[in-house]
Amino acid sequence: MNTAPRILFALALSLILCCTCGAAFAQHADRAAVGEAVAASPGSTSIDSVVEVQKYNRAIHIMAMLLVGFGFLMVFVRGYGLSAITATYLMVALALPLYMFLSSRGIIGGPKAGVDHLVFAEFAAASLLICAGAALGRLKLHQYLVLGLLFIPAYMFNEWIILENGFGLIAHGAFVDTGGSIVIHAFGALFGLAVVLSATSKREQGIEIESDFTSDRFSLLGSMVLWVFWPSFCGALVSPEMIPQTVINVVIALCGSTLATYVATLVLRRGISAADIANATLAGGVAIGSTCDFASQPAAMVIGLIAGFASTFGFAVIQGPLQKALKMIDTCGVTNLHGIPGLLGGLAALFVVGGIDRGAQLAGIGLTIAVALVTGLIAGKIVALFGRRENPYEDSEEFLSE
Amino acid sequence: MNTAPRILFALALSLILCCTCGAAFAQHADRAAVGEAVAASPGSTSIDSVVEVQKYNRAIHIMAMLLVGFGFLMVFVRGYGLSAITATYLMVALALPLYMFLSSRGIIGGPKAGVDHLVFAEFAAASLLICAGAALGRLKLHQYLVLGLLFIPAYMFNEWIILENGFGLIAHGAFVDTGGSIVIHAFGALFGLAVVLSATSKREQGIEIESDFTSDRFSLLGSMVLWVFWPSFCGALVSPEMIPQTVINVVIALCGSTLATYVATLVLRRGISAADIANATLAGGVAIGSTCDFASQPAAMVIGLIAGFASTFGFAVIQGPLQKALKMIDTCGVTNLHGIPGLLGGLAALFVVGGIDRGAQLAGIGLTIAVALVTGLIAGKIVALFGRRENPYEDSEEFLSE
Amino acid sequence: MNTAPRILFALALSLILCCTCGAAFAQHADRAAVGEAVAASPGSTSIDSVVEVQKYNRAIHIMAMLLVGFGFLMVFVRGYGLSAITATYLMVALALPLYMFLSSRGIIGGPKAGVDHLVFAEFAAASLLICAGAALGRLKLHQYLVLGLLFIPAYMFNEWIILENGFGLIAHGAFVDTGGSIVIHAFGALFGLAVVLSATSKREQGIEIESDFTSDRFSLLGSMVLWVFWPSFCGALVSPEMIPQTVINVVIALCGSTLATYVATLVLRRGISAADIANATLAGGVAIGSTCDFASQPAAMVIGLIAGFASTFGFAVIQGPLQKALKMIDTCGVTNLHGIPGLLGGLAALFVVGGIDRGAQLAGIGLTIAVALVTGLIAGKIVALFGRRENPYEDSEEFLSE
Repeated sequence: MNTAPRILFALALSLILCCTCGAAFAQHADRAAVGEAVAASPGSTSIDSVVEVQKYNRAIHIMAMLLVGFGFLMVFVRGYGLSAITATYLMVALALPLYMFLSSRGIIGGPKAGVDHLVFAEFAAASLLICAGAALGRLKLHQYLVLGLLFIPAYMFNEWIILENGFGLIAHGAFVDTGGSIVIHAFGALFGLAVVLSATSKREQGIEIESDFTSDRFSLLGSMVLWVFWPSFCGALVSPEMIPQTVINVVIALCGSTLATYVATLVLRRGISAADIANATLAGGVAIGSTCDFASQPAAMVIGLIAGFASTFGFAVIQGPLQKALKMIDTCGVTNLHGIPGLLGGLAALFVVGGIDRGAQLAGIGLTIAVALVTGLIAGKIVALFGRRENPYEDSEEFLSE
Repeated sequence: MNTAPRILFALALSLILCCTCGAAFAQHADRAAVGEAVAASPGSTSIDSVVEVQKYNRAIHIMAMLLVGFGFLMVFVRGYGLSAITATYLMVALALPLYMFLSSRGIIGGPKAGVDHLVFAEFAAASLLICAGAALGRLKLHQYLVLGLLFIPAYMFNEWIILENGFGLIAHGAFVDTGGSIVIHAFGALFGLAVVLSATSKREQGIEIESDFTSDRFSLLGSMVLWVFWPSFCGALVSPEMIPQTVINVVIALCGSTLATYVATLVLRRGISAADIANATLAGGVAIGSTCDFASQPAAMVIGLIAGFASTFGFAVIQGPLQKALKMIDTCGVTNLHGIPGLLGGLAALFVVGGIDRGAQLAGIGLTIAVALVTGLIAGKIVALFGRRENPYEDSEEFLSE
Repeated sequence: MNTAPRILFALALSLILCCTCGAAFAQHADRAAVGEAVAASPGSTSIDSVVEVQKYNRAIHIMAMLLVGFGFLMVFVRGYGLSAITATYLMVALALPLYMFLSSRGIIGGPKAGVDHLVFAEFAAASLLICAGAALGRLKLHQYLVLGLLFIPAYMFNEWIILENGFGLIAHGAFVDTGGSIVIHAFGALFGLAVVLSATSKREQGIEIESDFTSDRFSLLGSMVLWVFWPSFCGALVSPEMIPQTVINVVIALCGSTLATYVATLVLRRGISAADIANATLAGGVAIGSTCDFASQPAAMVIGLIAGFASTFGFAVIQGPLQKALKMIDTCGVTNLHGIPGLLGGLAALFVVGGIDRGAQLAGIGLTIAVALVTGLIAGKIVALFGRRENPYEDSEEFLSE
């Protein structure tokens, strides 16, 4: 086992983190004083503070999705569960401070404050985990960190263009994507596909991805944790007045995709696939993202039903032939869970949101696709420089035996 | 495998859902406009909005109980875990929109608004999951959906009689059942028993229900998730001022039943049963439901201790002989976890709540028992028309092998 | 199997609980009246009530850490998972009402009200679970209860000295330990070590503690649940204004320890240990506790990095030789996860918090170490009187086979 490049990488990473810290020291040194000042005056809580704490609650729900949700959903690969969970831990631990550092220093995108800052960083981490799902099992653990180092700036670049009027292309607020169907889900999935296309070799195509009864149950646990907290993901930054409507829409869309998945897996496969149940049930949450605060309840149900059916169709019918044709792998099927439903969700806004700027919406979707594919292809080439697995999907390549 | 009736059923279900959607479109079409109006005025958050968002937090906690809690508690059956989780997904996805549709259209019961509406629908879904626990492993997946279609209207009918002065029988507010010991737990358990009595054949009696070490650990995970969020279940619709007292009562009752379960399982079985620990520990939460906002802390402890002991006694001593005598099965032991402790909880209100209308309380309990048994027996006959399992408790009958 | 002492113990426990209840009845009997009064006036919610409900949300997050987090983290021991989970259930169910009883009766420490009372009790339960982690697998289930009965008063005694000016030693507010690095984590770990030193025999030293692939995944699940909700643990009693700064610091410290753990396990072991990943990733949360509301973000990152490295160093390098030298066992490695990082966190306050009373801080740390070791040694002797396992780390000694 050649550990030299790993350790080099570890040192480089530590260096980067130390620089991060050093820079930030200069910026935040007077925080302690603020702390003492505020702590001295109890009983004077403002409603704005209370609203901020409520946002924090949703930020914690998203954290549960990132670690327990995405982490355990990816445990379905038999014999690769320790790596999947560890990779999740590492990517979240890298993405959150990296996003907050780049943003607070003004390196990419505008400044965000307080809990909003944390939530935006969590959105970026979610998108990274989606991206990594495509390549799951093909990378060594340190390569997931390299992937994160490349992904986060690309994600922020796209976020800046689409949502913050970067280059003056799309007016502020013109692009409708409250829960991130496009900016988070579709971007992550497309970036991931591009990475896989450019980073994996043909020799790796033929390897079967297998699950077993216990890995399936862990995966369904992750799926349920994602389902449960999805309303907080979509409603994270929505104003308190809009929370009830938003979260009920998300719940209804998830109910729709869950029912549609059952019908679709039965009709398309003539039997039930545990992978479909774990994944496509969530497609309604992906697709309702763009319009979660605008849609009516029946529109939410229709979006959920369509997304669930489309996602299951992707898993059951499209994935096999497509992967053979393109000579690629999408381990977790993120195309089917995040790619297709994400794009559907972004397009649904054209029909659901009255007075929408159709040009801006279509331009935002097109730009996101372009940025994701271009930066993803480049990132894949770089990630491939940092090593190559000998045995895909095996914990034993990197973990010590007990 | 005869898939024709399944597909017919799937089509019928889709049809029902589409009608639901169509009807709802007419009703809610102007929501988007509201959304834009509110989003335009930040900084003007009212305390009522904040209270509503807090209710939403409890609604999410209940959602975690429904999916991760009930879902994984039912994974204890060896080799039936994928079906148990999928059935949970399907029943929740059916129950929530069905309840909200029937209620918002005024078909059964009075209208509810905002997050309250979601919470009432979650209560109904919880009761359905309890009901299904009795029949777990005896139904095919589409039969759980049929069960849900029949259960939810029956549940709402009972809710209307007991809590909303249906037929003028019980005055508004006279029946004390804040956390649903009677209306949710006892109703679900009794309905489930009636379903099993009328839907399963004698041939099925002799089959052993087995668990293994891993299915037990998943079941204990579900149990702990239920324990953790139970205070939010009982306090979901309680006013902010009453939350501290209510949630501490629920925690104390759960502590009581947990300690009592350990003592009881040891004394009654001369060894510890993992199933007792996973289930009877929760009996305090069931039993404190009716009086969670009224009880004193010591009363909560006493209710929890009694409920934990009674529940363990049910699992360890009553269940075996009773099932032989009645020639029935109660797969998850919902009689012991939800039936007996639920009735205890409803009756405890007679002693704990000062100035209670005893006649109304007893009438409500009696009516709930009657409605649950009658509608459950009918529902069982209908559910039986939709198929019959060849191999109870086996995922492989419906799931594709990996 | 000698069940006589168990049943005696069970009876004694019931007796204690009944006395608890009886005493408390006298104190709280008029609560029901209050309940009815408040319920009668909706729409008049004060901002203080809302802030209290937000505290309750964090209390529920901590409950998830206690049961699902600590409980499943301890499932890593192969073949002892049912016992680990049951022991967690029992200790939490004992600790919460015992703390609330001793405190509300004024037996140890000053009175606490409302949700604060519950949160302080949860802190004590967390410390007990840490303590039990050292002895995990060496005690019978009823011995964990005896341990709890001895631990909680000792914990409260130390809390009273350090935080409530007990004996007039440390001025109110002079000791900086918001998230409990010293009072909760270091105290629990040191008490646990002392218990193990005095309670276990030499014969038990040689037994290997083994994990398997599934027990590791359950352990990582517990780890992630702890990680996710850790910000609510540290920020539980912090004022709303300070929540954003506090929780972001905790998240950053956890990110730091997670990254450092990966690098350290790779460098120190030349391969990745699942146990390091499950445990040392959390060291940042332990260490940031004392200064979570004062630290700057870069200071939080540095604390997290150091804690993660130190904790992994403890697991990988120190633990083996130390246990041989001291002829003791620390099953869960609480020295490395809670002991060392806890002490680091308490000392970090000397550098991070401006204007800190260094004497009080050092005195508090020293006193905590002394109280924990002395009371722990005594407790270990008493616990040992209540039995001795024949087969450490085996569920089958106490659980019935399926």
